[in-house]
Amino acid sequence: MRRVVSSELELEVRDGGELVLQVAAAGTPVDEVLDIRLDGSPVEALEVPTPHGGRAHLLDVGTGRLVVRYAATLAGRVAPSPGGNDERLVYLRPSRYAESDKLAEFAAHEFAGLADAESIVAGVSSWVGARIAYEAGTSLSTHGAIDTLLGGRGVCRDFAHLVTALLRALGVPARIAAVYAPGLSPMDFHAVVESLVEGEWRVVDATLLAPRPSLVRIATGRDAADIAFLTTVRGDVELLGIQVNAIVDGTLPDDDPRQLVSLG
Amino acid sequence: MRRVVSSELELEVRDGGELVLQVAAAGTPVDEVLDIRLDGSPVEALEVPTPHGGRAHLLDVGTGRLVVRYAATLAGRVAPSPGGNDERLVYLRPSRYAESDKLAEFAAHEFAGLADAESIVAGVSSWVGARIAYEAGTSLSTHGAIDTLLGGRGVCRDFAHLVTALLRALGVPARIAAVYAPGLSPMDFHAVVESLVEGEWRVVDATLLAPRPSLVRIATGRDAADIAFLTTVRGDVELLGIQVNAIVDGTLPDDDPRQLVSLG
Amino acid sequence: MRRVVSSELELEVRDGGELVLQVAAAGTPVDEVLDIRLDGSPVEALEVPTPHGGRAHLLDVGTGRLVVRYAATLAGRVAPSPGGNDERLVYLRPSRYAESDKLAEFAAHEFAGLADAESIVAGVSSWVGARIAYEAGTSLSTHGAIDTLLGGRGVCRDFAHLVTALLRALGVPARIAAVYAPGLSPMDFHAVVESLVEGEWRVVDATLLAPRPSLVRIATGRDAADIAFLTTVRGDVELLGIQVNAIVDGTLPDDDPRQLVSLG
Amino acid sequence: MRRVVSSELELEVRDGGELVLQVAAAGTPVDEVLDIRLDGSPVEALEVPTPHGGRAHLLDVGTGRLVVRYAATLAGRVAPSPGGNDERLVYLRPSRYAESDKLAEFAAHEFAGLADAESIVAGVSSWVGARIAYEAGTSLSTHGAIDTLLGGRGVCRDFAHLVTALLRALGVPARIAAVYAPGLSPMDFHAVVESLVEGEWRVVDATLLAPRPSLVRIATGRDAADIAFLTTVRGDVELLGIQVNAIVDGTLPDDDPRQLVSLG
Repeated sequence: MRRVVSSELELEVRDGGELVLQVAAAGTPVDEVLDIRLDGSPVEALEVPTPHGGRAHLLDVGTGRLVVRYAATLAGRVAPSPGGNDERLVYLRPSRYAESDKLAEFAAHEFAGLADAESIVAGVSSWVGARIAYEAGTSLSTHGAIDTLLGGRGVCRDFAHLVTALLRALGVPARIAAVYAPGLSPMDFHAVVESLVEGEWRVVDATLLAPRPSLVRIATGRDAADIAFLTTVRGDVELLGIQVNAIVDGTLPDDDPRQLVSLG
Repeated sequence: MRRVVSSELELEVRDGGELVLQVAAAGTPVDEVLDIRLDGSPVEALEVPTPHGGRAHLLDVGTGRLVVRYAATLAGRVAPSPGGNDERLVYLRPSRYAESDKLAEFAAHEFAGLADAESIVAGVSSWVGARIAYEAGTSLSTHGAIDTLLGGRGVCRDFAHLVTALLRALGVPARIAAVYAPGLSPMDFHAVVESLVEGEWRVVDATLLAPRPSLVRIATGRDAADIAFLTTVRGDVELLGIQVNAIVDGTLPDDDPRQLVSLG
Repeated sequence: MRRVVSSELELEVRDGGELVLQVAAAGTPVDEVLDIRLDGSPVEALEVPTPHGGRAHLLDVGTGRLVVRYAATLAGRVAPSPGGNDERLVYLRPSRYAESDKLAEFAAHEFAGLADAESIVAGVSSWVGARIAYEAGTSLSTHGAIDTLLGGRGVCRDFAHLVTALLRALGVPARIAAVYAPGLSPMDFHAVVESLVEGEWRVVDATLLAPRPSLVRIATGRDAADIAFLTTVRGDVELLGIQVNAIVDGTLPDDDPRQLVSLG
Repeated sequence: MRRVVSSELELEVRDGGELVLQVAAAGTPVDEVLDIRLDGSPVEALEVPTPHGGRAHLLDVGTGRLVVRYAATLAGRVAPSPGGNDERLVYLRPSRYAESDKLAEFAAHEFAGLADAESIVAGVSSWVGARIAYEAGTSLSTHGAIDTLLGGRGVCRDFAHLVTALLRALGVPARIAAVYAPGLSPMDFHAVVESLVEGEWRVVDATLLAPRPSLVRIATGRDAADIAFLTTVRGDVELLGIQVNAIVDGTLPDDDPRQLVSLG
C-alpha cells in the first residue's frame, strides 16, 4: 500500500520566536520534502526525535510570512512495535485532556459488564460514537474528556480524549496519535486512539471518519498536548491557512469496525 | 401526625460577628423554643422570613462559647402551596451546586426515553440511587452535581444536587429542602428534592434513608447555598458539636417509592 | 432625565413550546408597547412579576417566524429601594456563575488590604477592569467567574460575574442586573453589578462601557441564569437577529467612576 | 555527602493484582536492599527503568499482607544531566495536574514584570510560598494547580503542581520529582519541582521544608501522575502504614533560597 501525504501551513509571525512543527510522517518515508520559507527565504529546522518514530521540527524564526510545505511518500506499512512495560504504565496514567482519574467511578458503572480489553475497547468506542455528536467549532482547545462527556459534541481530538480517558479508567492503556487520514472528508489532520489489546497497540477511531488501515502516523503521546502540529514556544504567531492531503494508491482499504487494526 | 423535632449546636466564636441560623421548622409549629446563649447569657436573634414559610435567624455575637437550642412540636401536616410561574421558572435555572446547563446533553442522552414529569422523576431518582454510593466524608462543601456524577459517592446534599440538576436539565422544576427527618439513622439534618409534577411539588429522596410523609421542612431553595443550618457572614466560628432529633407520635409512616408525596 | 429604550428579536421557532422573555423595563414606564407576532399574527404573553420590579413575559408559541418588538419611555429616575435582610443574605451566597465559595481564599489574599465595602467595591472593580480584556466570542454560555479569572477575557456578563463573585467572597452582597444602556457601543443588552454599600445598592460596571446614571433596569438576579432576555423552557428556537436601542434626552450624563451611583 | 534513605510500606492486598512501586533512589546507590514479602514469603519484582535514572518495580501479588522494605546508601552527589530539546519541549506542555494552558493569561498578568528564567523561577516560587498555606488533609488526589490556586492550601504535591503550571505558562520548562528529603519534618516522601534555567535543571521547593542540596531523587515526571510511590494497576489494595527515613552524614547542608541548586 503506497501512500502520499502532504501539508502546507501559512503563518504570520508577528513577533519572532521559537516554533515546533509536528507534520512529518513518523518512521522513514521513501521520499520526503520539508520546505520552510520566511518571506521567501529558506529557514533551517532542527529535527528532534519523538516517541514511536515521530520527528518534531524546531524553528527559530524572525518576523514575517512563514510558509511550511511538507510532502512524503510511504511504501508499504510499518511493522508495529509492541512496546514494553514502561509505555504500558505511562499510558495508563491520567493526562491533561484525558482525566481518567476523575472518570474512574463513572466508567466503572457505565461499563460494568465488560471484562477483557477487547470488549472494553469495542464497548467504549461505540458508546462514545453514539453519545458524542461530531460538530466543528463547539469545543475549546482547553477542553478535555470530561468537557466532552458533558457537552456531548466535539471534533476528532475530543472523541479521542474521551475514548482514551475511559479506556485508562477501565485499566486499558491508551494513547493518542496524530495522523494523515486518506479518505477523511473534509481533509484535515486527524487524531485517533491506540489501545493496548493483548500486547498489541490497536487503532480506535470512534468518529469512524476514515479507514484505519491506511492512516499514517505523525506524532504519538498522552493526549493533544503531545501531538499538536504547531506549537509556539516563544513569539506571536497566527495561523492563516492550512491544507492537508493524504491519498492511497488504488482504492481505499475496507475497514470493519469489529476488526483489530494497528497503525503502520 | 404529631412530630417533635429539636437541634442543638455548640459553637466556639473566636472572633465575634454575624451568624445566620436555619434550624427552625417552616410554618407555624404549635409549640416552639429557640434558646441562644453566649457563655450562658441569652442572645437576641432577628427572625427573617425565607421562601416557603421558612424562617432564618440572624445573630450578632461577640467572642465566646455559643449554644443554640431549638425545639418544636408540629400538629398535623401542612397543606402544600402549589406556587406560581415565578417559582416554576426560578427552579428550572441552573444554580451553584446544580449545574443543569452543563448536564443538559448528558441528561438528554441518558434519559432519552422518558417523556412526562412523573416518569422523569422516577427514572432520575432510581438512577441516582443506583449510581451514587452513600458515603460520608468523601465530598467537599464546594462540590456540585457534576462532581457527584463523576465521583460516584456523597451524602444527602450530593444526592439532592445531582437529582435536582438532572431534573432541571430535563425540564422538570426542582428545588432542595433542608428537613428534620424522623427515622433517619444516624440522626442528622437531612436534605431532599422537591420536583414539580402536574402542578404539585413532590418530594424526591434518592437516598431512601427516611420516610417522606413525616419530613419537616426547615428551609427551601435552589441548592445547598440557600439552606445551610449555619452561615458565618462575618467573624470566625467553629462548630464544635451538633445534635439533631426528630420523632413522630406512634409508628413511622410507610413510604412507597412509587407514590407521590408532598412535604408538609 | 427622559429615556427611550427598545428591542427587537427575530426568532425561528422550529418546534413550538414555551418561551420566557425578559426585555421589558422594570418598574412603570410612562409609555410602553410589547408586540409579539408569529408569522404576522399577534401572540398573547403572560406577564410574571420578577424581583425588583422586573417583569418576565411567558409565551406558548407554535412553529413559525416569531418577532418580538418592545419599546418604552421612562420619565425621571426610579427611587432605589434599599431592600431588607433577606436580600442581603441571598446576594452573599455563591451562585451558578459567581462561585464565591471557590474564590474565597484567592480573594482574601488578593484584596487583603481593603477593609470597608466602598474600598472593596472600588478595588475589585478596577482590578477586574485591568485584568480582563473585553473581547466578544471568547467565552461560552456555561462560563462562570473562575473561567473568566483564568481565561482573562470576556464580555459584560463575564466582567459582571467575576466582580460579583469576588465581592461576595469578600463579604459584600452583590447581584447582577440586565439593563438598557444609553451610550453603549456597539449597542446591545448590557449587564452590570449592584453591590450593597452602606445600605444602598450601587452600580458597578468594570467594563466602563456606558454611563451608570442613565442605565435602565430590565431584570435582576443572582447571575446570568436569572436575567437572560430569552429562555426556551420547551421547544426548539433559534435566535436569528437582535436589535437594541437606548437613548437619553439631551446629552449622556457624566459618570465619575469614583462616585456611588444607584440604578434607577 | 553520604546519604542513607529507607522506606517501609505495609499493605493489605484484598484482591490480588498488579502493583507498581516507585520507592528506589534513582541512579546507582552504593548499597541497596529491596525486600518484598507477602505474608512473610518473598515476592519477586520486575525493575523497569523510568526517566532520569528512575526505577519502578512491578509486582504481581496475591491476596495477603504485603510488606515492602527499601533501604539505600548514596555516596556523593550525582552529576546532573542537562537533557535535550525533547525534554525541554515535553516539560513545557500542560499535564493532568499542572494545567498551564488554563493558567496562561493569569500567569502573564500576575508575573508581568519578570523577564528571564531565573527571575521567573524566583518570583513564582516566593509567590506560591506566600499565597498557599501548607496544610495536610485539605486537598484531594484529583486536585491540580488550579484547585490549589483557588483553595489556597495544600501539601508538597500541591505546591509543586502550582509552581510547575505557572512556570510552564511563563515559558520555563518544569517537571516534578519525588524525593527522599533529609531534614523534612514530619518525615515523609517529598515532591519538588525542577525548572530549566540556562540549560540546567534547578530544584524549586516553594514549601522550604527541606534543604535542596541533600534531596535524593526517586522518580521524575510531568506531575504527580508520574511519580506516585504506589500505583494499583489491577486489584484492591489498602495502604495500612508507611514509614520514610532520610539522613545525611554529619550536619544538614545549608540552603540559601537565592542560590541555584541541582538535584543530585
